[in-house]
Amino acid sequence: MMSTHIASVYDEDLKYLTRRISEMGGLAEQMVAESVRALVNSDLALAQKVISDDAILDDAERQIGEKAIVTIAKRQPVASDLREIMGSIRIAADLERVGDLGKNTAKRVIAVSSASLPRQLARGLEHLAELALVQLKEVLDVYASRSPEKANSIRERDNEIDAIYTSLFRELLTYMMEDPRNITPCTHLLFCAKNIERIGDHATNIAETIYYMATGAQPVGERPKDDTANTVGAIGN
Amino acid sequence: MMSTHIASVYDEDLKYLTRRISEMGGLAEQMVAESVRALVNSDLALAQKVISDDAILDDAERQIGEKAIVTIAKRQPVASDLREIMGSIRIAADLERVGDLGKNTAKRVIAVSSASLPRQLARGLEHLAELALVQLKEVLDVYASRSPEKANSIRERDNEIDAIYTSLFRELLTYMMEDPRNITPCTHLLFCAKNIERIGDHATNIAETIYYMATGAQPVGERPKDDTANTVGAIGN
Repeated sequence: MMSTHIASVYDEDLKYLTRRISEMGGLAEQMVAESVRALVNSDLALAQKVISDDAILDDAERQIGEKAIVTIAKRQPVASDLREIMGSIRIAADLERVGDLGKNTAKRVIAVSSASLPRQLARGLEHLAELALVQLKEVLDVYASRSPEKANSIRERDNEIDAIYTSLFRELLTYMMEDPRNITPCTHLLFCAKNIERIGDHATNIAETIYYMATGAQPVGERPKDDTANTVGAIGN
Repeated sequence: MMSTHIASVYDEDLKYLTRRISEMGGLAEQMVAESVRALVNSDLALAQKVISDDAILDDAERQIGEKAIVTIAKRQPVASDLREIMGSIRIAADLERVGDLGKNTAKRVIAVSSASLPRQLARGLEHLAELALVQLKEVLDVYASRSPEKANSIRERDNEIDAIYTSLFRELLTYMMEDPRNITPCTHLLFCAKNIERIGDHATNIAETIYYMATGAQPVGERPKDDTANTVGAIGN
């Protein structure tokens, strides 16, 4: 009876972590979507909302970290339960970074809003954000299912985002060369594009963590990341 | 006798983590210093070395993470020992990111090397890197001492790096406006400057982790970070 009780409380602890991470994921997605909408529509109020929302994500990460440590200390889990808890900490850290990237994009709305964004450029940014958000949404779905196979397939999708980022990078350089007045706003747009591209990296990190949580191993094969230095723009970390 | 034996093996585990983190810190510092040297001198061979060295740092982070989990599972530590181990994981992650930033700078050496870097710009980048490296070095010394007071004083130093970054950002924009041929190389230099500025953020993260390891609490007071959006350039996360 006693051990059933302990197990069920323990289960509650793990469920709490899963639920909080899903909430973080939802908020991070929303922040990224709103930051790009604010950027494209020069919506300063929406940008301000994204900047404020970041504190919620920071708090959630801290609370997840504290809950994880308390759970480890109290329950002394081993093997897959321990991986589950350690994985929660890593995923929460990645989601917190995604929120930071949304916040950073939102902060650039003021600097960019003085210039009128050419429609084609806005479309490019929106497209990049859509892809990154699809990847983030999918990885959060995989988190709910804990499927290592699905986690591995998401890792392979990051190159598509990198390719769009590179073409957007080149397009921004063209605008800058055409008219020096474009240089300052386009510089901020370059950083915004980089922010969005990095969301894909965090989705990949999360996919790797889910794979590790489910299997106890690192995903097999090289991380699918353009690692050559000779293409302008597609310079990842 | 038995418990002394266990405690001393346990101590060895913690010492292993501390030693590996110090090694990571040394390599991360070296990579950043060499990446900036490669950039300023257009030294492609040195850039390539930095890019290769990153794999060592990635491996070290993974090994520290695995050792941490095995230690938690075997020794089931509580309170300060658990914080010590959890802190190791976080610090290793920050140092791995510092290495990534050095690697990203190194990757941009090819794109920049076609242009001759004005001496003033090179000096600015070197100065920014010096400050970031001093901060990283100091935080690694504080890690060795585990002093929460010293950890807190490092947190307050990040604004200096932000100010230099902002002035470098403005200077780069000026070069881009002067001559469209400067736009592509200067864009890469903008990202390099941003990479170096972010090293300061990671040093601040590490300082906060050390404070937490020593006290079990988050540092008091707002993180000293320029959080306003209306200054061009000084846009942190």
